[in-house]
Amino acid sequence: MSMDRLSRLLSDDGTPRIGFGGDYNPEQWDPSVWAEDVALMKEAGVNLVSVGIFSWALLEPTEGVYEFGWLDDVLELLHNAGIRVDLANASASPPPWLSHAYPESLPVTRSGVRLGYGSRQAFCASSADYRRAAAALTRKIVDRYASHPAVVMWHVHNEYGCHNQPCYCEVSGRAFQVWLAAKYGTIDAVNAAWGTAFWSQHYSSFREITPPRQSGASVNTCQVLDFARFSSDELLDCFRAEAAIIRDGSSHPVTTNFMGFSMGLDKPIDYWKWSEEMDIVSNDHYLIAADPRGYQELAMTADFLRGLAGGEPWMLMEHSTSAVNWQPRNRAKAPGEMLRNTMQHVARGADAALFFQWRASVAGTEKFHSAMLPHGGVSTARWREVVELGRSLQAISEVVGSRVTPPSVAIIHDTDARWGNELSDHPSVDVDVIAETRRWHSALLSTGVTSDIRRSIDEVSRYDVVIVPVQYLITQDGIDNLTGYVEQGGALIVTYFSGIVDEDDHLHLGSYPGAFAELLGVSMEEFFPLLAEEQVELTRFGFGRVFSEYGTVTTAEVLAEYAGGATAGSPAVTRRSFGTGVAYYVGTSLDRAGMLELLEQVGGGGRIVSAPGASDDVEIVSRSAGDRSWVFVINHGTQAAEVAIVGVELLSGRTVDGSLRVEAGQVAVVRVDAS
Amino acid sequence: MSMDRLSRLLSDDGTPRIGFGGDYNPEQWDPSVWAEDVALMKEAGVNLVSVGIFSWALLEPTEGVYEFGWLDDVLELLHNAGIRVDLANASASPPPWLSHAYPESLPVTRSGVRLGYGSRQAFCASSADYRRAAAALTRKIVDRYASHPAVVMWHVHNEYGCHNQPCYCEVSGRAFQVWLAAKYGTIDAVNAAWGTAFWSQHYSSFREITPPRQSGASVNTCQVLDFARFSSDELLDCFRAEAAIIRDGSSHPVTTNFMGFSMGLDKPIDYWKWSEEMDIVSNDHYLIAADPRGYQELAMTADFLRGLAGGEPWMLMEHSTSAVNWQPRNRAKAPGEMLRNTMQHVARGADAALFFQWRASVAGTEKFHSAMLPHGGVSTARWREVVELGRSLQAISEVVGSRVTPPSVAIIHDTDARWGNELSDHPSVDVDVIAETRRWHSALLSTGVTSDIRRSIDEVSRYDVVIVPVQYLITQDGIDNLTGYVEQGGALIVTYFSGIVDEDDHLHLGSYPGAFAELLGVSMEEFFPLLAEEQVELTRFGFGRVFSEYGTVTTAEVLAEYAGGATAGSPAVTRRSFGTGVAYYVGTSLDRAGMLELLEQVGGGGRIVSAPGASDDVEIVSRSAGDRSWVFVINHGTQAAEVAIVGVELLSGRTVDGSLRVEAGQVAVVRVDAS
Amino acid sequence: MSMDRLSRLLSDDGTPRIGFGGDYNPEQWDPSVWAEDVALMKEAGVNLVSVGIFSWALLEPTEGVYEFGWLDDVLELLHNAGIRVDLANASASPPPWLSHAYPESLPVTRSGVRLGYGSRQAFCASSADYRRAAAALTRKIVDRYASHPAVVMWHVHNEYGCHNQPCYCEVSGRAFQVWLAAKYGTIDAVNAAWGTAFWSQHYSSFREITPPRQSGASVNTCQVLDFARFSSDELLDCFRAEAAIIRDGSSHPVTTNFMGFSMGLDKPIDYWKWSEEMDIVSNDHYLIAADPRGYQELAMTADFLRGLAGGEPWMLMEHSTSAVNWQPRNRAKAPGEMLRNTMQHVARGADAALFFQWRASVAGTEKFHSAMLPHGGVSTARWREVVELGRSLQAISEVVGSRVTPPSVAIIHDTDARWGNELSDHPSVDVDVIAETRRWHSALLSTGVTSDIRRSIDEVSRYDVVIVPVQYLITQDGIDNLTGYVEQGGALIVTYFSGIVDEDDHLHLGSYPGAFAELLGVSMEEFFPLLAEEQVELTRFGFGRVFSEYGTVTTAEVLAEYAGGATAGSPAVTRRSFGTGVAYYVGTSLDRAGMLELLEQVGGGGRIVSAPGASDDVEIVSRSAGDRSWVFVINHGTQAAEVAIVGVELLSGRTVDGSLRVEAGQVAVVRVDAS
Repeated sequence: MSMDRLSRLLSDDGTPRIGFGGDYNPEQWDPSVWAEDVALMKEAGVNLVSVGIFSWALLEPTEGVYEFGWLDDVLELLHNAGIRVDLANASASPPPWLSHAYPESLPVTRSGVRLGYGSRQAFCASSADYRRAAAALTRKIVDRYASHPAVVMWHVHNEYGCHNQPCYCEVSGRAFQVWLAAKYGTIDAVNAAWGTAFWSQHYSSFREITPPRQSGASVNTCQVLDFARFSSDELLDCFRAEAAIIRDGSSHPVTTNFMGFSMGLDKPIDYWKWSEEMDIVSNDHYLIAADPRGYQELAMTADFLRGLAGGEPWMLMEHSTSAVNWQPRNRAKAPGEMLRNTMQHVARGADAALFFQWRASVAGTEKFHSAMLPHGGVSTARWREVVELGRSLQAISEVVGSRVTPPSVAIIHDTDARWGNELSDHPSVDVDVIAETRRWHSALLSTGVTSDIRRSIDEVSRYDVVIVPVQYLITQDGIDNLTGYVEQGGALIVTYFSGIVDEDDHLHLGSYPGAFAELLGVSMEEFFPLLAEEQVELTRFGFGRVFSEYGTVTTAEVLAEYAGGATAGSPAVTRRSFGTGVAYYVGTSLDRAGMLELLEQVGGGGRIVSAPGASDDVEIVSRSAGDRSWVFVINHGTQAAEVAIVGVELLSGRTVDGSLRVEAGQVAVVRVDAS
Repeated sequence: MSMDRLSRLLSDDGTPRIGFGGDYNPEQWDPSVWAEDVALMKEAGVNLVSVGIFSWALLEPTEGVYEFGWLDDVLELLHNAGIRVDLANASASPPPWLSHAYPESLPVTRSGVRLGYGSRQAFCASSADYRRAAAALTRKIVDRYASHPAVVMWHVHNEYGCHNQPCYCEVSGRAFQVWLAAKYGTIDAVNAAWGTAFWSQHYSSFREITPPRQSGASVNTCQVLDFARFSSDELLDCFRAEAAIIRDGSSHPVTTNFMGFSMGLDKPIDYWKWSEEMDIVSNDHYLIAADPRGYQELAMTADFLRGLAGGEPWMLMEHSTSAVNWQPRNRAKAPGEMLRNTMQHVARGADAALFFQWRASVAGTEKFHSAMLPHGGVSTARWREVVELGRSLQAISEVVGSRVTPPSVAIIHDTDARWGNELSDHPSVDVDVIAETRRWHSALLSTGVTSDIRRSIDEVSRYDVVIVPVQYLITQDGIDNLTGYVEQGGALIVTYFSGIVDEDDHLHLGSYPGAFAELLGVSMEEFFPLLAEEQVELTRFGFGRVFSEYGTVTTAEVLAEYAGGATAGSPAVTRRSFGTGVAYYVGTSLDRAGMLELLEQVGGGGRIVSAPGASDDVEIVSRSAGDRSWVFVINHGTQAAEVAIVGVELLSGRTVDGSLRVEAGQVAVVRVDAS
Repeated sequence: MSMDRLSRLLSDDGTPRIGFGGDYNPEQWDPSVWAEDVALMKEAGVNLVSVGIFSWALLEPTEGVYEFGWLDDVLELLHNAGIRVDLANASASPPPWLSHAYPESLPVTRSGVRLGYGSRQAFCASSADYRRAAAALTRKIVDRYASHPAVVMWHVHNEYGCHNQPCYCEVSGRAFQVWLAAKYGTIDAVNAAWGTAFWSQHYSSFREITPPRQSGASVNTCQVLDFARFSSDELLDCFRAEAAIIRDGSSHPVTTNFMGFSMGLDKPIDYWKWSEEMDIVSNDHYLIAADPRGYQELAMTADFLRGLAGGEPWMLMEHSTSAVNWQPRNRAKAPGEMLRNTMQHVARGADAALFFQWRASVAGTEKFHSAMLPHGGVSTARWREVVELGRSLQAISEVVGSRVTPPSVAIIHDTDARWGNELSDHPSVDVDVIAETRRWHSALLSTGVTSDIRRSIDEVSRYDVVIVPVQYLITQDGIDNLTGYVEQGGALIVTYFSGIVDEDDHLHLGSYPGAFAELLGVSMEEFFPLLAEEQVELTRFGFGRVFSEYGTVTTAEVLAEYAGGATAGSPAVTRRSFGTGVAYYVGTSLDRAGMLELLEQVGGGGRIVSAPGASDDVEIVSRSAGDRSWVFVINHGTQAAEVAIVGVELLSGRTVDGSLRVEAGQVAVVRVDAS
């Protein structure tokens, strides 16, 4: 509920408001600019800014010497203007003096290269020197600003793990040994979990264990998976230590900004676990310019964040007003695109929408990253759109505190299942959790159906349909939970390469898909992944890509077989009634048409109710509170859309009598009262 | 003859049998599983298993402490069931304690990265610590099991050089200096051989010499070539030391499993040299799933192995029942494909066909590698095919000990020539020994002609045609041998980029192709490699790819010129009579049709006799002994094939009266008695 | 004027001659070959060879021990034959003993790998050990040969920076600190220039600064840019020290061989700065075989070299007679291509044309690099072409000392602007200074218009048109200079992504293109780079690629807008009259037709006068001296060309009465006297 409380702090009179603003880095500018900053923030309707994220080097220019004067001035200016501050503890980017004094605090890559200083996040999560320095800084900041009237929340660090995760140094190695000892107790238990009888890797003591550095062949996959978990935990320890110092001195909510689906096995952060430590769940989201339907990925990410926040409102800590700087080709957003993007986040549960950053930088790596105030200043179309966005958010501020209307569909996404799937030596490099999840999510989205994203062990009985895409790794608890869900009436869809291993990456022996085989009533014997760009025809539901299999059904009914190729005659899509529910298996990656055909069958009888008017271009999603709901219609396309609805459109203030026309590229938010 | 002796040991009564079985890794499973393993082995007809390959860590869990009890039990179980054991000395995968105690025993990459522990083969071949530990282990194993009745052969190490070759550490560097001193005697001789006058690299002492680590520009190619030879020798020293210990205590044959054509300059092992140290030549072979005609590569590899074995029977130590785990997309084998693959190996001289591995792993990097007993157990189609394969091998066991019917064609393949061709700064990266060799081998294969693969210095007078594909490096002995072959009546085909350098990578000066120019009667002046995907039309024999040249003939007759492009008018294919023979030059990479047209001309007058019924899909090859022969017809295609033959088909037991029909995907083995 | 003096030294009687010859590496051959070398050089008309470039290891086989006897003999032989010598100080390739004795003299890569010995240029520019050893060697060579009658010039080092640039070792790091202290004076000035307020990088002392090693994220771009400048200066210090020793003992001109446009941010050498230190500007140029119009790149490079030489004659130190060895596919030159290439260089101001190398190597990395004397010796077509080339250069020797007829067009190319554009995190990876420069240069070339290549701060008032392609970084002096140029009547064309930052990589704030926006009269707001292979239609001038923008004009006239896509309606090509001149902006990368259409408009009124008969295939360029000029017509195509001209064709000696026919692939050089 911290987000709800925060919303009320954003106005002077306690009226909840949608948080609007961005990262504010005044230290990059001459103080003479600050007054203009604040005046323009007011003009744009900014009510919340994040300050101090990259300020360590100026706040503590040499070890133990602090200079807070400039920050005092900045907070005072903001406070006087009524702008609230999300204050950082500034631990994200250690100053040069840290690695100069403690060279071993720099992280080491998988191939053993110790990284140099010169960018950001230049530290090893296990470094005692870094931890001590970050804690000292945090304490100083909390002591000085905990009771500052501008400060309403705390921003610990920034984008944990983005640039220094994981670290393979010797200090990390020793910490890994300690972590393993705590997890397993005995070295025999490690040997059992890691399957060290394979390839002669039996350990006789924890001291022999190392990080999974570059080796001659593929490294033990269980070791790699545990190292990912350890690496996430090690940074979480950093967060916990700093958050504890803050909470010791302040009652304001604490957050750190997540990064959506970015944290795969290569930079592992387990957000499901981390979210339990957050007072407010917040996220940074950036579109990929080369993705022609990036807004579908945005929608999926926003649904994931809502899941991490347990269904409660969450905070969009960063997105961009226009281009970013780190892709190969960084395109500006088209007119209206920024508004659509922001409204997507709000529609899906965000009660704050901030940007990186307030004023476009004049130097440094991110100088070509767009900002609220562009290089061209207030005479630009971008600035006018930002001001208009502030007005739009104000116009819909009544949605604050409402929840997304409870979806009837959940998609299962476990961190361990994703990381597990990204381990080496699998049947096909094309089996991708995020891609397959997006196929299902986007298919539903195109029919106006919103999905929740949940874990396999979460209570899912309230959903009519649960989809399990590429759940490579699953625990017994997960299996039991999903089995019970079907037994009690649920409709479950499980895709290829699910249920394969347990939490130690050990096979669920027997037929594939392993732990799901009995529930699904299928007995798949061998994987026959398709070659790149290859597709296989099915007897129904169109074509499959990525994967196919040899096998048979046991207790299931075959809905579609492979119609040609090596696996012709093997089941591709099956259905089994179990208990009062039904379990579907989809052994290949369906194309959009086939997926919609299948979803129509699964969702019959009211399990899935699509929203008329929705399409690949027209996104429809609603929030609700009590008898009132707010329907967001976001037209990403180049044609006007018509949607049947009765209510009041908040951005225009117009009454809608039954038919709403939303022009190409436009957004409508319609308040609907239950009659 | 060791293979012949071994074949007779595989039955209790001395009747020769085809070895059948696989790697057996019981230590990965609870002992309660072992009895089932042995029972199922009997069901499948398994008569030989390899044990202990990855057992070091369990046999010697800490340095100098040995635990053999479990292995005693395993061998006892196998012995009681009459299953023979190929016992490993377990040196392939050092346990964690080795690199923990001796960190410098880990290998170092070309760029100076010391690899970490976590996979297998984590050792430097020059490490005295590794060598001492491996020798001690070997001695213990031999002492304990040399006279065990189940043991019939020894398996030293495993796939030497696959993951740790070559090592660029300082210890390897000193060993390289010693190797060079032994080879060259004086540093002046090194300077001469390495051409150090180029780029100012004159060495004044052996101590100045280093491994060819990553450098600012291309490293001295002679140095790189000698380092490859050294690296092969260094591992061969490891083999020799361990084999000597074994032979000191046992009279059973010793082998190590080769890896076909995998050992290029990047992981150099000279199998021609190594094969001289083997009592039995054995090989591991895996298909590439993305190769639509992988069985042609299989056939070529099997012919290579027969060459390494000096024409005698050899042993297929590993292949796969279905998918592997290490390719980007690992496809299961289609029904019947495993049988066809196994029969190809046997047809081409293998008297044993084993798999990696017996039971599919539950954990570890290779858990998705197929096995004889799949995750799905005995209810799977794969298991049924394995049992059927055992029966099929039993049905043709009379072929054991026979030899492949002597081919009339040999293809020259020298290790040094391949490694030399892979050195840097050559005319074109598309010039590939293996690819060009395969083009010739497959063209012949498609006409039912089997090729031997031999070295340039081997006696080749018994062949009617000898083909020399991309023999970049050739010694004077090789040139003399092949020249004598032509002079005495042989037909020699030499391709582009042959005869270019001597064993020190020094040019054979004068016209190209250097050492072959006089024999061929051509005088090529400059290389004009084709661009990627480019082809050039010839006046005959279709199109050329990869390579073309400027030049003229001296004493040769021009069969085809380049018809267009920059080299128009230069000779592409030539023919010169010399002595009582004839020498052809092919200056470009011919397409299949042109190659067959040329082979028809070369092979006229009975030099090459094709097998009617053979095609790209239908492989025909025979073994013979005395007046009896066995014709293997392997139909890789999707159409039934008809072959004219009289005899008895062994798999079905049916008499063939003149016409054999082999259904799509099927195999026939026909015993033919000379009438 | 050193080149003019040198030309007169190439004949015994002081008649100026075009330098002709190549690198001569006699130490790679037995002395018995040397006499033949010299005799063949005479046959080919060679008058100048470079000796000793890679001789360090033989001249000083162990530290401090020198052996000059063989070099004495070589110089004596050459002198007796009247062949002049460009003598190297041999510092380019340290012998093995250097890195053996001083391991820290080896360079370190960005990721921290210390490179090994085995190729060439194996040293760190900041290494005191290398510098001391190179200086000692230089002194010995100068002492011995300064007054040798064969020696006419000095060749310091070789291709500086090609293989060891930049070095990231700790010694370089300390030298970088010293360089920064000299440049900035105070650490505060560094902080300001580097914008260290971004990402918390404030430095409190120079000691904290490191080279921009591989880091977790993008490294500070200002740091990277300064490190490139430092790295160029560090090698320049090496040059200066060695040149000073030479100049102290000899009055012959000193050079080092440049490498055209090769020195980007990845191996930074600022040739504009270096050229100030040269007595003669010299260059190495090699065609890219896969480039179907490589001669256009050659022409652009030659024009660049003339710019570096301040318009005076320069020297082509190396090119190739045919194939090189370092590209993926190294094609021989077609008949006539070598002559055309050489004549291109001479036509564009080279008064010497040498090759790498005289005699093709028998061993080593460059053995497949073509030479004047091929592996096949004097019976080859290549040798005959070399002899013919020598005769052709003799036939046109009257051009020596003349200057390229002053062009009316200049293209701006600054080192800092190129390096700046190659920094990380930019709008698009497709924005490429060299590619865009070539588009403009080649368009002009195809109409027979020669361009000069100059810096933004150079006096350009004598040009009718000045083109500024992708001048990302520009100083205030540059802006003032180009603004003044327009004001006083010039026609300026500025492309997209120009004027963006100052010399510290800080934004020129306001509209884009930053520093040029006011002069151009445009106000661009956001970059909208095109995706790979994407093109956008314009309302005129065809299609744009690479880049587009959102924005408007202020004082400019719109010549073309984007006709479709996201930026439809924004200006693409604009024109503004300013003072008595005109300034054009081109916001996208025009295709050839559109560029020619625009150039025709810009060049109207005689600003640009094309040469009738020129085309993409037919290159026309002239040199002149007094009333006489020499028109080079080089036909790169496959059709004969006709050019209207009156004069004497020097290669044939024939009089041309008004129409010159140049056959496909041929060259003509016509002396034209002003009548």
